[in-house]
Amino acid sequence: MDWVIISVIVSVLALGVAAYFYMWVSKLEGASGKLDKVGTLIRKGAFTFLKREYKILGIFVSVVAVIIILFYPSPFWIGSITDNLIRAVFFVLGSVFSGIAGAVGISIATIANVKASLAAKRGLSPSFMAGFRGGAVMGMAVVSTSLLGPALIYLLTGNPDIVLAFSFGASSLALFAKAGGGIFTKTADIAADLTGKVELGIAEDDPRNPAVIADNVGDNVGDVAGMGADLFDSNVASYAASMTIAAALGQMNLLFCFGALGLLASIIGVLVARVKEDGEPGKALNGGTYLTCILFAVFTFAACMLEGFELRLWGAAVIGMIAGVIIGVTSDFFTGDDKKPVDKVAEASQSGPAFTILSGFSYGLLSSFPSLAGIGLAALGAYKLCEPLGGDYALMGISVAAIGMLSVVGMIISNDAYGPIVDNARGLAEMGELGDDVIDITDKLDAAGNTSKAITKGFAVGAAGLTVISLLAAFAEIIEKAGVPFKGFDLMDPIVMFGMLIGAAVPAVFSAMLMMGVNRNSQKMVKEIHRQFNTIDGLKEGKEGVEPEYDKCIDIATVGSLRELIPAGLVAILTTLVVGFVGGVNAVGGYLAGNIISGLLLAVLMDNAGGLWDNAKKRIEAGHYGGKGSEAHKAGVIGDTVGDPFKDTAGPSINTQITVVSLVASLCAQLFINFSLF
Amino acid sequence: MDWVIISVIVSVLALGVAAYFYMWVSKLEGASGKLDKVGTLIRKGAFTFLKREYKILGIFVSVVAVIIILFYPSPFWIGSITDNLIRAVFFVLGSVFSGIAGAVGISIATIANVKASLAAKRGLSPSFMAGFRGGAVMGMAVVSTSLLGPALIYLLTGNPDIVLAFSFGASSLALFAKAGGGIFTKTADIAADLTGKVELGIAEDDPRNPAVIADNVGDNVGDVAGMGADLFDSNVASYAASMTIAAALGQMNLLFCFGALGLLASIIGVLVARVKEDGEPGKALNGGTYLTCILFAVFTFAACMLEGFELRLWGAAVIGMIAGVIIGVTSDFFTGDDKKPVDKVAEASQSGPAFTILSGFSYGLLSSFPSLAGIGLAALGAYKLCEPLGGDYALMGISVAAIGMLSVVGMIISNDAYGPIVDNARGLAEMGELGDDVIDITDKLDAAGNTSKAITKGFAVGAAGLTVISLLAAFAEIIEKAGVPFKGFDLMDPIVMFGMLIGAAVPAVFSAMLMMGVNRNSQKMVKEIHRQFNTIDGLKEGKEGVEPEYDKCIDIATVGSLRELIPAGLVAILTTLVVGFVGGVNAVGGYLAGNIISGLLLAVLMDNAGGLWDNAKKRIEAGHYGGKGSEAHKAGVIGDTVGDPFKDTAGPSINTQITVVSLVASLCAQLFINFSLF
Repeated sequence: MDWVIISVIVSVLALGVAAYFYMWVSKLEGASGKLDKVGTLIRKGAFTFLKREYKILGIFVSVVAVIIILFYPSPFWIGSITDNLIRAVFFVLGSVFSGIAGAVGISIATIANVKASLAAKRGLSPSFMAGFRGGAVMGMAVVSTSLLGPALIYLLTGNPDIVLAFSFGASSLALFAKAGGGIFTKTADIAADLTGKVELGIAEDDPRNPAVIADNVGDNVGDVAGMGADLFDSNVASYAASMTIAAALGQMNLLFCFGALGLLASIIGVLVARVKEDGEPGKALNGGTYLTCILFAVFTFAACMLEGFELRLWGAAVIGMIAGVIIGVTSDFFTGDDKKPVDKVAEASQSGPAFTILSGFSYGLLSSFPSLAGIGLAALGAYKLCEPLGGDYALMGISVAAIGMLSVVGMIISNDAYGPIVDNARGLAEMGELGDDVIDITDKLDAAGNTSKAITKGFAVGAAGLTVISLLAAFAEIIEKAGVPFKGFDLMDPIVMFGMLIGAAVPAVFSAMLMMGVNRNSQKMVKEIHRQFNTIDGLKEGKEGVEPEYDKCIDIATVGSLRELIPAGLVAILTTLVVGFVGGVNAVGGYLAGNIISGLLLAVLMDNAGGLWDNAKKRIEAGHYGGKGSEAHKAGVIGDTVGDPFKDTAGPSINTQITVVSLVASLCAQLFINFSLF
Repeated sequence: MDWVIISVIVSVLALGVAAYFYMWVSKLEGASGKLDKVGTLIRKGAFTFLKREYKILGIFVSVVAVIIILFYPSPFWIGSITDNLIRAVFFVLGSVFSGIAGAVGISIATIANVKASLAAKRGLSPSFMAGFRGGAVMGMAVVSTSLLGPALIYLLTGNPDIVLAFSFGASSLALFAKAGGGIFTKTADIAADLTGKVELGIAEDDPRNPAVIADNVGDNVGDVAGMGADLFDSNVASYAASMTIAAALGQMNLLFCFGALGLLASIIGVLVARVKEDGEPGKALNGGTYLTCILFAVFTFAACMLEGFELRLWGAAVIGMIAGVIIGVTSDFFTGDDKKPVDKVAEASQSGPAFTILSGFSYGLLSSFPSLAGIGLAALGAYKLCEPLGGDYALMGISVAAIGMLSVVGMIISNDAYGPIVDNARGLAEMGELGDDVIDITDKLDAAGNTSKAITKGFAVGAAGLTVISLLAAFAEIIEKAGVPFKGFDLMDPIVMFGMLIGAAVPAVFSAMLMMGVNRNSQKMVKEIHRQFNTIDGLKEGKEGVEPEYDKCIDIATVGSLRELIPAGLVAILTTLVVGFVGGVNAVGGYLAGNIISGLLLAVLMDNAGGLWDNAKKRIEAGHYGGKGSEAHKAGVIGDTVGDPFKDTAGPSINTQITVVSLVASLCAQLFINFSLF
């Protein structure tokens, strides 16, 4: 069977499911009055951000496209201009595909939030379905397009290298969407908390707060669009990395077979996920993930039997998948509500915020061990398993492990996009005054979203790790093909070590710049909120008919996040180019390794410490160690505020940064070979 | 000239200077009454800790010595038992040398603190001299013994490999002294601050606080003995690494020439350092450092001319030295009192502690770039400079750069040990009621200590970085000599990548365990302080004749720090052994590289963020952004508390951890070759 064609078919099928869910959600009972108004504000705010982001991205993409036309894969006066043009086109398509998926995701998320909120009147089960199916639209849209793109490129051009350009387009979008969205969401979140909860003592989603709509918009642009772009990026990058090797080995069919069956398993997973009225939504989400995993393993095993694929490669895929689950489960241990670390941090908070920070940070550091070891073991296991097949099969094993880990990503994204939708639904229930029963139900749905988020982030980090390791292999492939005498990147070569040290510093600088951006930006927003409270009569008191100027806050978040993001992204990309043009490919090899190592370490640390602080605060609020209003609670809130940009801005953006840098390196490998100082 | 012999002579000369300073300080006016009593308490407490530490260390050293006799360099039933015995003896001597230097340092520091405090009655200049010359005893003792040891070993055995065993002995001690001392000092510091400053609102060194003596003891065991052991360790390790290569190249004479002249330059530096009555002590400290640097460069250049040494190797040493200065200066930028980062963090503190933490942490992340790049550039520059000499000269260049960076270490340690002495003097002035003038002078001296500390830490990290890079080279040397087919550690080999990922997680886990130890321990001490305040009548009120039970707190810090340290040290050592016996030497090569990269990153981050928070608090206390008692000040205090274990426990201990792990790897290389799973 031609699995490339089947991939196209399954992708279209998944798009159909996405369309079906979109309509299913849209047809649910619509809102009216205040709820409708607030919902519309959120929707408008999200699209305002998206439009501006895409405009800037448009400029960026155009500039890069011109550079590609001029120089890539070789300067147009040396090579063929057609080669360059094709790559430029697919680079643009990469960002367009991802961009459309993001826009669709935002569109449904800002419909589903209102629907889920209203559906909660009818009970837990209908509300869950509205939230989950809304999220699944995003899940299906992202995964289908990320499989469709590489499949179409291969069908049209037969040249797997071009997928690298497509992947770089997707990564560029991801950088803007994830890091920009991350700055946006935390700017609004922190400013809203500081002025609302801390200064005025009003509830989280009180409509008097001028930042409250921006906060809800942030959930959508950061967690829905941003996260979707991030995983689209990882997914495409893993195809880009493995196709280079698979082509040489004639294993393209297997690759697309695994991709198509993973998507099929995800489709089934999202179709069957549901929860009973008295059931636990968290179990439904995780149950769907596990079901998808099992289906993937069974389907691909059957395919290997029927098609005569190498079973060792199947084993590599399963190793990757299991590693993803293990990393997810350990993340859950370090951040879970009912686990020891969260409890210990909540307990330590009684001695003051310094201890909240110190203990949470320490657990974050500890949590890096299982994640890094899991990625290392998966890569090693997949390699060793496929080594007997000879040649490049061992390296292929690592990229198939990444494909395996990402196989269930359709389900993962659905779970993850569910989170901000029900989080929004909760806010809407409060702002739309739907009553305590509805708030309780949406609260319960929201908590389930937090639990599954830990597992998702584990998958995202693990997948990024395996993907970039295989991108490093792809980079080496390209060098070898260029005919340069190449004996690997030797750690004893000081130019490699030099690259490693620089590469290791980049994620640190990148994440610092993002966090400083959040800091600066949220302080601007706090000033604006104070201005509104001081100048708009009756706002603080909640006088009937008086409304804050929500759009001012949305504007600050939008403009600020995009301005803060650009220098950070440029630092990562330019450093790569400087290292390459100065130190050559050997320096870049080290640079990528250093970048991966320190990037994964910092990402896990920040993701988990941030999640832990969030849940420690919630644990205190649930009545432990003094409960709401106690000293421990104040300390917990401080920990949560520190954790916000850790877990929602810097941590997850590092995934994208690593991928972007790896792709830039692969794309420019030939240039580095031709034009480097050393 | 035989520079090995000259090294012995200069070492003895430096010991003479140490003895002279010891007597000079001892002869200063002695204390009486309350001051004498408190001074004696501190001295007794420090020696209590030292005795217990050395007892545990004795057990550890004995066990390791037996293991060495049985297995190292080859199991006694295969190789020669004499070889093993010699190594065991020098392993023990390594820790004994370092231990004696530490004890001498503690002894003089706990004399000089009282003398400096009393001398402040006569003015700034005499007080500075008492503090600085006290510190210089430690500086001279450490550097002379760390040169004497390797020189004697080479004279006696002619076998540079044996220095590895000596170095491992020194590292074992450093691990106990630095990490144990670091836990001790922060346990007491945090507990004293929490109960004294925060709960009761009494001054930092108020004698009513049961933890106040423990706090002053901590300064000595952490900053004097711990830091001395750390730099002794780096110094010896840099000889160990370079001697292996130098022997093969017949460059041993140059190595000891540079070592001896560096020590000579330091001797001159410490002899001329002084400050006028109206001068700035900070300038005197830094001026001494710069003078030492210049003298070293001039002396060694002259020696190269006279002896016909390779000028390229001289260049490598100078590159290392300059890199050290640059790293020091950038650390100073990120942590300096009057620089932008500190001011920004102080400003951000007005919005609450979360922003103190976020902005300080971000600057800490940023600061990693210049340090890592500096180390990378120094290694690369030294390598490239010496490459034309052929063969292993390029690698020798890197280790000579480390020697160059460490050349001025005698001066550096003197400056650093000066810090806790004058810090103690300040406390003693308060507890001994010497009046406001004296407190002002000691305050000024104390502030100068903080400034020079940043530069010192920059040197320490840089030196550790270069040293471990050359230890990695030494490790490769050993593998090559063992006759194993060895083509370097290839990043594309997944077993290397696996090692790297695990290696990168180790410093994170190690530092987390230390910080959690501080957390646990200080909470225990807080309970004890509360008990004393509640059960000892009149203590809180400061009734005449009522005294707290200081020794109880010293006891908690001592027992706790040693108990918390052992698991952290074992994790680092055992992980190395597991990786080696499972993955073999290739995994260990990657493991060391990952350990270096992530260790340096985390060390710089923690050192600088911690120093920055400390100074941001001080800046607020100096009257900026609301001054003492303001919201910004409260936030600053929280930042400082978080920073305490960052900068004084975890950060600097990581240096030692990296060195220990590198030495374990080199020592066990042959075992890994013979007995590994893969």
